[in-house]
Parts: sequence; C-alpha cells; structure tokens
Amino acid sequence: MGERPFAEEDSLHEECGVFGVYGAPEAAARVALGLHALQHRGQEAAGIVSFEGNQCYAHRAIGLVGDNFNSADIIGRLKGDMAIGHNRYSTTGDAGLRNVQPLFGDFSFGGLAVAHNGNLTNAMTLRKELIARGCLFQSTSDTETIIHLIALSREQTVEKRLIDALKQVEGAYSLVVMARGQMIGVRDPFGVRPLVLGRLNDAYVLASETCGLDIIGAEYVRDVAAGEMVVISAEGMRSLHPFSPVPPRFCIFEYVYFARPDSVCENRNVYETRQAIGAELAHEAPAPGDVVVPVPDSGIPAALGYAKASGIPFDLGIIRNHYVGRTFIEPSDQVRHLGVKLKHNGNRAVLAGKRVVLVDDSIVRGTTSKKIVAMVREAGAAEVHMRIASPPTTHSCFYGVDTPTRDQLLAAQNDVAAMAKLIDADSLAFLSIGGLYRAVGEARRVANQPQFCDACFTGEYPIALTDAENTMTGSQKDLFLRVAEV
Amino acid sequence: MGERPFAEEDSLHEECGVFGVYGAPEAAARVALGLHALQHRGQEAAGIVSFEGNQCYAHRAIGLVGDNFNSADIIGRLKGDMAIGHNRYSTTGDAGLRNVQPLFGDFSFGGLAVAHNGNLTNAMTLRKELIARGCLFQSTSDTETIIHLIALSREQTVEKRLIDALKQVEGAYSLVVMARGQMIGVRDPFGVRPLVLGRLNDAYVLASETCGLDIIGAEYVRDVAAGEMVVISAEGMRSLHPFSPVPPRFCIFEYVYFARPDSVCENRNVYETRQAIGAELAHEAPAPGDVVVPVPDSGIPAALGYAKASGIPFDLGIIRNHYVGRTFIEPSDQVRHLGVKLKHNGNRAVLAGKRVVLVDDSIVRGTTSKKIVAMVREAGAAEVHMRIASPPTTHSCFYGVDTPTRDQLLAAQNDVAAMAKLIDADSLAFLSIGGLYRAVGEARRVANQPQFCDACFTGEYPIALTDAENTMTGSQKDLFLRVAEV
Amino acid sequence: MGERPFAEEDSLHEECGVFGVYGAPEAAARVALGLHALQHRGQEAAGIVSFEGNQCYAHRAIGLVGDNFNSADIIGRLKGDMAIGHNRYSTTGDAGLRNVQPLFGDFSFGGLAVAHNGNLTNAMTLRKELIARGCLFQSTSDTETIIHLIALSREQTVEKRLIDALKQVEGAYSLVVMARGQMIGVRDPFGVRPLVLGRLNDAYVLASETCGLDIIGAEYVRDVAAGEMVVISAEGMRSLHPFSPVPPRFCIFEYVYFARPDSVCENRNVYETRQAIGAELAHEAPAPGDVVVPVPDSGIPAALGYAKASGIPFDLGIIRNHYVGRTFIEPSDQVRHLGVKLKHNGNRAVLAGKRVVLVDDSIVRGTTSKKIVAMVREAGAAEVHMRIASPPTTHSCFYGVDTPTRDQLLAAQNDVAAMAKLIDADSLAFLSIGGLYRAVGEARRVANQPQFCDACFTGEYPIALTDAENTMTGSQKDLFLRVAEV
Amino acid sequence: MGERPFAEEDSLHEECGVFGVYGAPEAAARVALGLHALQHRGQEAAGIVSFEGNQCYAHRAIGLVGDNFNSADIIGRLKGDMAIGHNRYSTTGDAGLRNVQPLFGDFSFGGLAVAHNGNLTNAMTLRKELIARGCLFQSTSDTETIIHLIALSREQTVEKRLIDALKQVEGAYSLVVMARGQMIGVRDPFGVRPLVLGRLNDAYVLASETCGLDIIGAEYVRDVAAGEMVVISAEGMRSLHPFSPVPPRFCIFEYVYFARPDSVCENRNVYETRQAIGAELAHEAPAPGDVVVPVPDSGIPAALGYAKASGIPFDLGIIRNHYVGRTFIEPSDQVRHLGVKLKHNGNRAVLAGKRVVLVDDSIVRGTTSKKIVAMVREAGAAEVHMRIASPPTTHSCFYGVDTPTRDQLLAAQNDVAAMAKLIDADSLAFLSIGGLYRAVGEARRVANQPQFCDACFTGEYPIALTDAENTMTGSQKDLFLRVAEV
Repeated sequence: MGERPFAEEDSLHEECGVFGVYGAPEAAARVALGLHALQHRGQEAAGIVSFEGNQCYAHRAIGLVGDNFNSADIIGRLKGDMAIGHNRYSTTGDAGLRNVQPLFGDFSFGGLAVAHNGNLTNAMTLRKELIARGCLFQSTSDTETIIHLIALSREQTVEKRLIDALKQVEGAYSLVVMARGQMIGVRDPFGVRPLVLGRLNDAYVLASETCGLDIIGAEYVRDVAAGEMVVISAEGMRSLHPFSPVPPRFCIFEYVYFARPDSVCENRNVYETRQAIGAELAHEAPAPGDVVVPVPDSGIPAALGYAKASGIPFDLGIIRNHYVGRTFIEPSDQVRHLGVKLKHNGNRAVLAGKRVVLVDDSIVRGTTSKKIVAMVREAGAAEVHMRIASPPTTHSCFYGVDTPTRDQLLAAQNDVAAMAKLIDADSLAFLSIGGLYRAVGEARRVANQPQFCDACFTGEYPIALTDAENTMTGSQKDLFLRVAEV
Repeated sequence: MGERPFAEEDSLHEECGVFGVYGAPEAAARVALGLHALQHRGQEAAGIVSFEGNQCYAHRAIGLVGDNFNSADIIGRLKGDMAIGHNRYSTTGDAGLRNVQPLFGDFSFGGLAVAHNGNLTNAMTLRKELIARGCLFQSTSDTETIIHLIALSREQTVEKRLIDALKQVEGAYSLVVMARGQMIGVRDPFGVRPLVLGRLNDAYVLASETCGLDIIGAEYVRDVAAGEMVVISAEGMRSLHPFSPVPPRFCIFEYVYFARPDSVCENRNVYETRQAIGAELAHEAPAPGDVVVPVPDSGIPAALGYAKASGIPFDLGIIRNHYVGRTFIEPSDQVRHLGVKLKHNGNRAVLAGKRVVLVDDSIVRGTTSKKIVAMVREAGAAEVHMRIASPPTTHSCFYGVDTPTRDQLLAAQNDVAAMAKLIDADSLAFLSIGGLYRAVGEARRVANQPQFCDACFTGEYPIALTDAENTMTGSQKDLFLRVAEV
Repeated sequence: MGERPFAEEDSLHEECGVFGVYGAPEAAARVALGLHALQHRGQEAAGIVSFEGNQCYAHRAIGLVGDNFNSADIIGRLKGDMAIGHNRYSTTGDAGLRNVQPLFGDFSFGGLAVAHNGNLTNAMTLRKELIARGCLFQSTSDTETIIHLIALSREQTVEKRLIDALKQVEGAYSLVVMARGQMIGVRDPFGVRPLVLGRLNDAYVLASETCGLDIIGAEYVRDVAAGEMVVISAEGMRSLHPFSPVPPRFCIFEYVYFARPDSVCENRNVYETRQAIGAELAHEAPAPGDVVVPVPDSGIPAALGYAKASGIPFDLGIIRNHYVGRTFIEPSDQVRHLGVKLKHNGNRAVLAGKRVVLVDDSIVRGTTSKKIVAMVREAGAAEVHMRIASPPTTHSCFYGVDTPTRDQLLAAQNDVAAMAKLIDADSLAFLSIGGLYRAVGEARRVANQPQFCDACFTGEYPIALTDAENTMTGSQKDLFLRVAEV
Repeated sequence: MGERPFAEEDSLHEECGVFGVYGAPEAAARVALGLHALQHRGQEAAGIVSFEGNQCYAHRAIGLVGDNFNSADIIGRLKGDMAIGHNRYSTTGDAGLRNVQPLFGDFSFGGLAVAHNGNLTNAMTLRKELIARGCLFQSTSDTETIIHLIALSREQTVEKRLIDALKQVEGAYSLVVMARGQMIGVRDPFGVRPLVLGRLNDAYVLASETCGLDIIGAEYVRDVAAGEMVVISAEGMRSLHPFSPVPPRFCIFEYVYFARPDSVCENRNVYETRQAIGAELAHEAPAPGDVVVPVPDSGIPAALGYAKASGIPFDLGIIRNHYVGRTFIEPSDQVRHLGVKLKHNGNRAVLAGKRVVLVDDSIVRGTTSKKIVAMVREAGAAEVHMRIASPPTTHSCFYGVDTPTRDQLLAAQNDVAAMAKLIDADSLAFLSIGGLYRAVGEARRVANQPQFCDACFTGEYPIALTDAENTMTGSQKDLFLRVAEV
C-alpha cells in the first residue's frame, strides 16, 4: 500500500517520487500537494525548484513535505508558473541536504533542475571518468552524473544535451527536468519506474503516480511510455523516442507494494490488482482459517481479495496506532524487553481462539513477520497461517529500491519450510511468480522475455549492473566525495 | 476508532487520557508508553509527573507524546517507581502550558499531582467562591479547582482531603492522583468516563483504556467502578466507595467513536460492539448498494458489520494518506478552490459506477459528510447512501467532550430528510437509540433510568449543569484568569 | 559597570531590574527598551505584562530581552497603555519559566502583576505559614509570598492590600505593581535597592536606574524615596509613606559595580563616583607602576580615576572579545589545559616589560583575579600590582545579590597578604571602607548608623535575616515546592 | 578595533578570517577557538573542515562561531589532527549556506578544502569562461573559481595545481588550503590581506591575525610574506615564491580599523599604531576641548593617543550596552521616532557643559556620525569637535572589504566643511594621508610606489579591476547562478 509498514526497518523502500507542473499559476503550491500525495515514495527529504523569468527558486529540506512546504511564506518565494519537485528516501546514510533533489546545474545556456526516480547502474564508473576530466561533484547522488554530462555535451539545446547525457547512462530512471521555458519528462528504455502525464486546464503535469494528479484535480492523460521523452513548452507538448527500442520491463513490485492503492499504473488499478493477487493467493495457497487478518495497512487489499476468494471472513485483527512518530524511542532496555508495541496492538476480540490467516505483501528480512506472528499469538490466536502476496524476495534491486543485500534477505537464505519455522507460523505460503503474472493480467510469464522487471524474485536483471560488477574489483565508494557533513 | 477523522474540525474530541504506574522501575517510561497508546484521547499536549523520595519531577509539553517524551534524557530525569501522566485536547483555545496536566499542588503535607479525564459542571461556580477566599488560580483548568479544595480541606490525610474535595464538585471525572507513597484512582458516582485497573507483576497500573495496559504488557484486572476510589500504596490496594451510590451512566459514545477498537470498556469489546452497531444499522436501515465503503478509519468496524449483515461486499473506496501532518496548510485560495484533498482520495476502482453505501460513525456539523459525499461522487459513484452508526447528535456534551453548541450541530437544526439534502446523499439513515442500546447488549433503553449517558442523542443530562445555568445570568468567562500568555 | 565581567562565575550578580510605563501608547514596546537598558541587572530571563481593558497580556522567556522581545508580533500582542517588566538573574538553579517575573495573581477584584528587585528575608517563614493555611504556591520565588498576602488581605483596595502585605514582609524590595487602572512603585523602608521615577510627556515611568529612562527619552523626575509608595492612576500620582520611618541604607555596592556608569543613583552619578573611588584608591594605595590597566569593562572608570590621581598613564592592557556568547563551551580537557582565554587577551604592546597597576572593582572568589594576573604576566608584565576599588568582600548579601557563602569568599578566609600570594600579585591593596564613603561624598562612615548598607564589607546587616536564622534549625529548602520541572 | 561599531550598517566590513592547524590532536577544537578570536573579521557564518585518514569532515553554519561550534558533539565529529576554518561576512545578500567556506572540491587525487580572505577581481570573467567549458558552479563565491581552476589543471600535485590556478586569478587573497597530508598557506603577490604563521609545539598554525595564535597558546613565528606559499606536511614546512615579485602593498586600513588591537600585523602592533595615529591626529588637528571622548569601542586607542598628545583628559562619554543582540528590532515607528538608542547612551556626567573632542576611526556614509554627534549634544555637550583617525574614505575597496559605492561614501561627495555641517559638528578634521603613513612608521608615502594599499583613501588601485571594468559593458550578475535558495 506504499506506506510505512509494521516495522520500518524491515521493508523495502522506494527511493523517490517526482512531480512537475508547467503553465499553472502558483506552480510550487501544486507541486507541494503532488509531492504530499507521493509521500509514500520517499519520506526523508523533499525539494521544489520553481522558475520565473530567468531565475530559479529552490527550497530543499529534510523531512516530510507537509512539515517543510506548508507555509505561505516559503511557497510564496517559490515563484513562477513552472516548478518541479522530488521526494527522497535516503539509501546510503548520506542524508545531507546536498543530496536532496531536485539537483540544479548552472550552465552557459541557463539553469536546469533535475528530479530523478530510479537508480543508475553505471553512475560510479562515469563519475570516476568525469572527475578525472576536472568535473567537481558536490553530492553523492547518481543524479549529479547526469548534470555533468549535460554540462559537457557539445549539443546546443537542452533537449539534445539531455539525450546526449542519457545515452551514456545505464539504469532505471524516470526524470522530470526543468529549464528556461520548458519541462521535460523522460523514462529509461525499459520503463522500470512509473511516470504519468496529466492536464490541469491548460497546464501540464508530470507525476510518478496518478494519485499525484488526483490531489490537484488534474486529469490523467496517459503514462509516459518506456523510452519516451516528452518536451513541454509554450508550443505545447512534443513526444520523442530518442533511444533504441527495447521491450518494456515495468517494475512488478510497484503493484505488490510501492504504489498507492488508488493509483493506476500502466493502465492497471493498483487496488484491484492487489485484490486479484489476494484471490490468486487464496487459490494457490488455501488455509484452514476462521478469519483473514491483514498486516496493516499494506496487506489490506490482498487480504480482502483472499477473504472474498476463500469465503473466510475478513476482520481487523491488528489495530494500528495512528500517532506513531518516527521519533519515538523506546526508553530503555528493560522496557523494550517487555515486548512493547508502539505501532500496533493485537485485537483480542478478533483473534482469541481463532485460526488466523495472516496476509502480508512480502517478507524482507523476516524480523517483522516474526514479531507479528508473536503478537497475534499473544492475543490468543489458536493457529497462525501466514500468506504472502508475492513470491519470495530472493534478490536485491539495483533500479531504485533500497533492498538489503542477499545475505540479509530471508528468502535468499532459507526455503519456505525453514522460513515458516523461523517466523513461528503454523504454515507459510508465498504467491508463485506465475500467480503474480496472472494477477496482473498476463496469461503467463514469458520465460525469455518477461513482461516485467521481476529481478527481486527471479534474479533476472534486465539492465547491466556495471558499477556492481566493478565493485568486485575496487572500492568505488571509498574513492569519491571524501567530505562528510557532520 | 478514536482517532482524527476525515476532517479534524468536524468531529467530537475527547478531552483527555490518564495513566498511572505504581511500583515499577522507570515508571515514567511506562507512563509515556501508556499515554502513547491513549494518544487518540487527546493530541494537543501531554505531561508526566514522577515521584522519588520526597521530590516530584514534571515534564509537560505541547504536542504528541512521541514527539516530547522520546528522549532517554527527559525520561531519565523523571525519576522514580511511581508516575502519572495525561493527554489533553484543548477545548477553549487556551492551549498554554499552564493548563497542561498533571497539575501539581504543593501542600503542607507534601506535593500532590492530579490527572483528570472529564469535565466538572460546577467548576466556575466553585472557582468564584475560592478566589473570594484568597485562593490564587494559575490556570483556566477546572482541575485546578480540585487542587484548591484539597488545600483548604481540614482533613488530615490525602485520601480524606481528596474525598472532601470531590464531594463538593459536580460533573464527570476519572482521576489519577499521586502523592507521597500512594497513587489514587477515582471515578465520579455516575462513572461517565472510563478508568481501568491493571497489574504489571507487582506494580499497579491505572489507565483510561485497556489498550494502555496492552502496550506495556500489563494485565487487565477490572474497571474501577463508578463512584469507586482505589488507593494504592506499599500496603497494596484498598477500595473505597465514598459517595452516595447512584445507578451508573457510562458514556455510550465511547463505544461509538472515542475508545480505541482494541480496548475493552466495561466488559464490552469496542471492536465487536462497533461491528454489532453496523449489523444493527444494516437491519434498521438497509440500502440498495453494490459496495459498503467505510469513512476511514473510524467507520471501518461498523462498515464491516454492515457488510456482513447485509451481504453487500466491503471495500476500501476511500484511501487515506498516512503522512498528513497537522501542519499542512493549503497554500492559497486559488489552490484551495480546486477542492484539494490532503488526507483522502476516492478510489475510482471501487467507486466508479457503483451504488455506494457509505458508513460513518456520526455526523457533527455535517461539513465533512458533505465533502466526502462529493469526493465519492467525483470518483464515479452512481449513488451514495449514507448510513450513520449512531443516532443523530442533537445535544452538546458537558462531561468532557468538546462538542459544538447546538446551533452548530446539524441534527439539532435539521430533520433527516433535510440533512440528506444538505450533504447531497441519495439516502441518509441513522441508527435508532434503541438500536444502539441493543448493539451494546441491552434489551432496551430503560426510559426513566437509562443505562448509559446518552445526553448527546437525547438531551437527558444525568448530572446538573450548574455552570451552564449560571452562565445564563452572568459572564463567568470574563471574570477569571485575566492574563493571557501571548 | 554592571555587566558580565571577566569570568561570569566569579562575580556578584544583581538579581533584578524592574521597569513600568503608565499612560503611553505601546507601553510594552517601551518596557522592552527599558529592560534592555537594564539588562546588566539580570540576564537569565525577562518578562512583560501589559494591561488593556480588563485583561492582562503576559510574555515571559528565558534569555535576553533583545532575543525574546524583539518581534513586532510579540510586542503587538502585549496590548495596552500600561505595562511592567522584569529582568532576572536566577539564584538558586531553579531557572524555570515559573519563576520568571512579573508574577501574576488573579484576585476577586481583578488581576495584579508584580515585578520585584530585592530579596525578602522572611519569605520562607511566611511561606510555611501560608501553605499551612491552604495557599498553593506555584513558584519558588519569594515574590509569590507577596501575592498570597495580597490575596488573603481583608482590605478592599489594591493599594491597601499591598500595604497590608508589605507590612508582613522583611527584606529589601523595590516593587513595580500593576492592577486595573493603576501602577504602583514602592521601596522598602531602608531603600536598599534603587527605584526612580520619570515622565515621558504625560506618561509615568518607573525604573531601577536612570539609564532605563534615557533609552526611551523619558525625563528623570526623582528617586522614589526609601519607604515611599507612589500610586499612579488616571488621577495622577499620589505619594504615600505607609511604613514607620527608618534612616535609609542604600546599597553602596550599586556604586561599586552593579549600576550602569551612565546612571544616576540617589543623586550621585555612577561614573563620577567610580572615578572618585579610583582617585581615593590611588591616594590610599599608591603603586610603583608604569601603566594603569583596567580589568575590562567594569574596572575602566576606577582605573581612569586612579590614573589621573596617580599620574601613571592609563592604557588598555587587556583586550576584550566582544563576540563571546554564553554558550561557548571549551571543547575538551586537553584544549582547556592550554589556558584558553575566550573572552580576553593580554595586549603585549601595553604590558611587555611594564610594571602594571591592575584595577578591578572587587574580588569575590579570587579565581578570576588569579587568572587575570597570570594572563598579564604571560603577556610580559614585569610586575603586577593589583588595586581593588572596594573594601574586601567578607560577607554574603541577603538583600537581592547572589553572593557565595562566606567559605567561598576569598576575603572572608584570607588576609590581604595571603590573598596577594594566592592570586600571585606583586602587591595587592583594597580601598578602605572609609575611603569608599569619602568617594561617595560622605565625610565619614557614621559608626552606629551607617549611611549605606555595606553589609558585604562589614557584616552589619540592617534588616533581620529571619529565614537565614531559621535555617540553622531546619531545612526549609527541602520542605517546599517539591516538584522540579525537568 | 575590529568589532561591530556604533551602527553596524554604517561601517566597513572585513569579509573573512582564516585559520588552520596542522599536526595537533583535536585540530578542529583549536580551529574553532582561532575563529572565535577572529570573529571580528566576519560574523555572518563560519565553517570548519577537518581531515582524518582519507576523509574530510565539514560543518558550516550561519551565525557566530560560539553559537555553532560549541558542542563537544560537533567538534568530536570533526575528526583529525588537521583542520581549517573560515569566518565570513556576507557581501552580496546571498548569505546561503552554499557560500559558507571552507569550500570543498573532490578531485581525482583526493579532496581539497579552501578558506579565502580577500576578493578576486577577475572571478566573474573566469567564471564565464569556465561555465562555457562545462564547469558547474554551486555557489556565487569567487573562491569556487579557484577550485575549478585546480580541477582543470594538468599539473600532478596539489601544490602545482594550486600555483597553476592562482597564476590565472587577479585580486587579493590570503588562502589556507588543506589536502591529504598537507596544509598550504599563500598570500597574493601584493600581500593585501594578512596571514601569519605560528607554532604550537610540533604543530603548525596559520591565522589571519596573531590574536588567533594567542587564544590557543601558539607562538607567533612570522608573517607569511607577500607572494609566498608555505607548504606544511609531515616533512615540515617548505617556502615557495611562485609568483613574479612585486613591491608589497599591505592594506593600511587593517591598522585603522579591521585588525584587533592586540594583534601584530607586519611587525607593527595594532594598538600602538592606533595610539600613534591618535597622536598624529592631535598634532595635525588640535581641538579646543575639555575632554577627549572615543566612539566606543573602535575609537578608544586613537582617542587615548589623542588625549595623551594633546593633554586633554580622556573620558568615557558614551556608554555601551553590552547586551545588544543583532536581533533587537525597534518595535514601531512611533517608538523609533523617540530617538531610541539601543547600543549606546551619552554619559551626562562627562559631557554636560563640556567642549567634547569626539574621536572615531573613520566616516563611511556619515549616518552614524550624525547620530552620535546628536547624542552627545543631547547629553549636554557645549561643543562637539569631531576628529577622524584616518583620511577621508573616498573610494570603494575591491580587495575583500564590503564598501558602499562611491555615491554613498560621504567623503566622495562632500568636502570637509560640508561634511562638518551634515553631521552637525562644530568642527571636523581628518588625519592626512601623510600623517597616516607617519603613524605606521614610514617617513612619508612614496608617491609612485606607495608602501601600502591605500586605495580607499586615494583611488590608486594596485591590482587591475577586471570584473568591475567588464561590468560597465555587461550584466554579469544576472548571468550566473540563476537559482536562489528561498
């Protein structure tokens, strides 16, 4: 359901949401709203850059959109009819302001701002070359590589310089770019990350998900296509396809967990898809249960689907405390050992004496599943049958999702029986990869040419992992940006 | 479900949650957790007072428990094995620190701290008399009246002074009081507000609701009875009944909305009770619908009950944005007029083309219902049938809930047909008062002696409204505490 | 010179400055300026209470006036043509907001605010009695005692209640009191602390020192007399003398150190008086020096007087760093041991090879003198002759100055020769008590009836030390206000 | 005296102080102290970069050193035995963090940090060229130009790259540079800004002024010479002279105002020099006065010199309020018109009825002088004779001092008689340029080859003003860094 789950540290994190408005008054105010709707894609930091006349205005801050872009004062200083914004989840521990997007470049032809969702797989390799040429990097972000490639391009227009730059990078990216008089949206050739186009009267909107359009009353027009670049200016919108075409590979995990349930991704409604996943799971992995209980809130749609398909009643067996701040610290070891539950509580009325079918979207490290099974048992459950609305997550993502390394992925280290034992469930079952493809509407997964990027389940990576391979033989991380903001 | 609903300004607010721990190490840490679990009962401010040796330690702050009591530093300074705490929702606009409880009094026999859930109905009348005697008030809180009455009592023990004081006050109160070597819990003779007793190994716990016991792993022992005073000290617990007995009148709205669904109040599970309310509503007020949609999150249990009883499928037709801070300000009139929805979004996949049965817990001013019906229609609903899981709210509460005056209560000014028109629903129905009593397990409402306080639905107030009546003839508010913290 | 000296921790601190304006628009703005001019009398906290209609407006904050009362927003909320204010130096470590003055009382006859400079010597004794009667104290401040005595008085008018209260207290006080329609200034019978009266067109001003009048362009009218009460209202000003007359005993240390040099106290200009002290010191204690160097900044006027009288040239041998915040923490033991000097540096050009006559206003613990002599030597001084512009400080003050106990006063434990050795000066001399009286313009100190309070030099306390004597037989401090804000 | 004068907005501001420590434990703690001692050279922002292993650690903040580098926490995170720091006064209104030095570059050969005192006169011209080549600028600081030139240099070592870069820049600079294993100090060929070398046991120290050495107990070794580069590493210190030699032109205004009086610049003690300036002024421009009064605090040494040379007594006729924060806002127009004096007060005891010789260091816009003459007259002065301890300031500085443009310089627009009238002085006189040279120890100013940079008095600029000339024909400011942090 695209929000912070049961235990924040034991889930996958999308790294970014992007949003742009071209041609509407108070564009920054609308971008703030769009970013707020996309907050589930990144909660660590947010930034907005607007454009008026020949001048950009930028505000970037650590924290939630609603905490940092809520004053008429700040919004008022972000002048202009065009603005782009970015939500960020920090992946590397380098959560300083210098990495908060949109990043800005000051070129001979004017200023340019970039907001990036995704991850480049050859950024470090390029960075090394660029530094050797005399380029100065100011962040640890892979996005800055794109800025330097634009600066060094011998092309004349922003559009051509951007194409020139993107032809040199590998990886997953959905970009929103802003320069004088134009806003550009572009997705990598495989279209791994989402990007949609909307209209708000005469204005254009670009957003990671359709829920970002809804909040400002914009109409959904269509998805930007894999490998497509849309250039929006006073002349209207042009569509370019600058890259060699490849079969698209949209991230299937967006349906499982990342996207908000009220969004429509690539013409599939996320909520319906998750219900279908739950139904598929019920058929593949029936359970001897009295009640279907979702792990809130992300497991709710799949659990509803499971309940309807299985005929077992659905009930809220785990109650969420809506006031948990990120900042609540359990005060001492002694108290912690009592098994304090800050975010959830088992609902004894639903669970006591029941055979519980517990539905969650995925298992990452397994620490959360273990705790939640224990909580359900403490509240009196007679049996706990865990059903997971996706295949076992066995591989790391390199395309913009912050995944643990394989040694920390429960499913990479254990078979299902061992996992069931580790989390102390009476039974455990995952959806099959085929079942997942069926739930999203495909007859079957095409073996040599899968219709989605499903690398986290299969290990089949559609885009070369250049940096990761180079890392085997060197320590790039240590080599660059040798200054830490303390 | 006891949390901030669709539109904060258009809902009823419980004023307080209270919590106390006697006899456990790091008592303040446990109280912080308990207050966190009770956060739904008051979000404006929180305070904890602990006791060690002959000294109290106090920390009070505006804001959430998790934002103000999360540091080992602060918790560490709240020393001792005994501590009490309070969550507060500010009712009068006087949200200064001076009104944040627990209030503290420094008496000749030692210090004493009081945390109060409820509202006294003769506080202003008493205050006027006390000031004339030379008492100096430091807050606008009705609770301070109790402190002064204790100070002036000629009784010798804390216990007797407290009884002496409480015999002079009228209204609803569940108090947790702490003095040297003892913690006292007491409910008013009618037991309007809840208070439960728990054990944590050898320690005693007092809490507004059982969910506060759960979070620290304490066992639920029983409810403190209406009119009962429990005195906890090194000698264990004694139970007193100092007041003339009257038939209890627990607040029935706790079941409808205030209490957390995983709590058990007066031996009734709240979640089950809400499901029963939904089922009763389905029988009383069937609707020609394709889908039952709850207004999140408080409407979910009743909607599930309605769906099960009616056989109409349940689905999440409204998606909640979990990242809405209190602080997000819609940036400008222009943007606001677009109908921006910061907290929720209609889920088109569920709603489009459907006849929607929309279930909410109550209607206060009606402004929210109007917006939510509009949102559901915008997302494509063919029809909207609103079903309310309580009777029409026609009267203000004077016993600790912040209700608008009658002229602002939609149901006090309109009949059901007019209300349906005002909120633009195709049909509207409320649960009957009889249905509500059935849902909570009573055969019927006893006319002259109702089993609950249901004044907000019936106007039958069990406790005299002394101040409110005096107000007719004078302006007490202007008379007292003539200093504003600016 | 009344400001933070060389080492803050080794100096005497005045506890308060008071200021009031009656009858001028934007009275709070003027009070803020007056408090700013009186900042040297207390830097820990400041408060202002204004009055408009029937309502008071209060703002109190920890920190400097200029940091807390500098916004048009706050000043604008302190409405009215009448306001009083207070600067505070915290004496007991209880620096919480609850002790920040003006204190406010809400009486049956209306609100009343009190700002107090001085210290009551029977406050704890009275407090004990009041608490036994049922009074609730909210602060540890002695000033609150006055508020309770006013509340309990059976007199009808504010004026008479205040007199009634003050007749019960002992100690030193200069009060500014505000109630509906009137502002009252009053000094204790001995007039230990200063209070002056000024006019600003039609408005009246009360201030601890004349420099507070200067900053708002008010004219100095006269000092409020010892034992006098001035009552200012729409009818103008009345002067009362409610107490039995005693010969006045103004604090002579105000001339030595506390008052600002540009103030006029009791018809004596402070700057001129300090020069006269320096001249007297030069006559009494000549030194074989090449240069007279003040300990900045408080020693400058006396050093100039010494230089002129002795004919030895005056020069700035110690340079002050004007950017020292209170908050600079020497970062580590290792660095600290280097003898880091955050606030001052020896000026080698002036000191090297010279016989230096170092002039300071007083010696408290001696730790500062020791450091400064060492600094002067390190900068190359051949000899250091310390001359102190007051007699040895041998006794604690109980009348509103935060003095160490006698065991920590260097001069209470050592004779001059021993002190010279301890601070490593080549010679050391103090002004005699007779010399000090001559410098302030008296022919001699009248032995049985000294013209000033000089208890810190002589131990002759003019006002009974009731609490201090009671302390011998009991522990009052432990008994009251048993709650610590943490 | 190098501190904030009477009216901050009407004085010249030094832009920077630099400090570096090589080879001492807790180097950052020492740099913080050094920057604190140099705080008078820049109060807007401060930064420190340390080096340990292969990693730099940086902290930069808006505000005073003592407010931002005072926690053991921050200092502890600035690890290593080598660190450099910078104080900054913002000149252009672009006071964002991105311009706070030391600036950092991440090169192929490792990280490098630069702290710069001075101003480049061809920075914009170079910047334009560099951007055309694809360089990305992240600040508006001229110092960043040096970083890019280093990045693009084809030399192999840091030392040679830095020389290569500096040979391309014009202007005034004293730099402290840090790279792996080395710290470099360098002054421009004319040596306009100061830089001194010190030792602290085995460690080396670089500082803008000797007062920075004193605070950490370091010994002054010598000034870095004009055009000299010192390279400090594990092998000790090497001295290079990479530039074509020119006769040095140290800024003579450092003696007049900028440097702290306890510093020694180019072998001249600042305090003594200012006294000599005062004496020279007394000879050149005697005044019929009864008392010599300094404008505090910067006018004190010259006033003492004037008093001694003239025989007229010195006295503090203006008392400074030491608690003025930058943040005190005069609350309203009405109050402001009263002529409120937040920072100073006339000392009536010294001034009343006297002919006052008022000594100040310089006149910039003249607004302050006008106010101070008025204040002195209000305090009763019979006559006011203004004497200025420098020649008329007729030209702007382009070498690192924030001067108004010529149309705002009083002396550029008026002769002395007109100035006297404008500031309402009975007489006004400036020191002659010849007198200033005599006071600093020169027999005379060498006409074609002046020994100092005195362009602000004479308009003779020793270094080409390339950017300023280009500005005539284009609008560089608009062209670059088109993003504003809001």
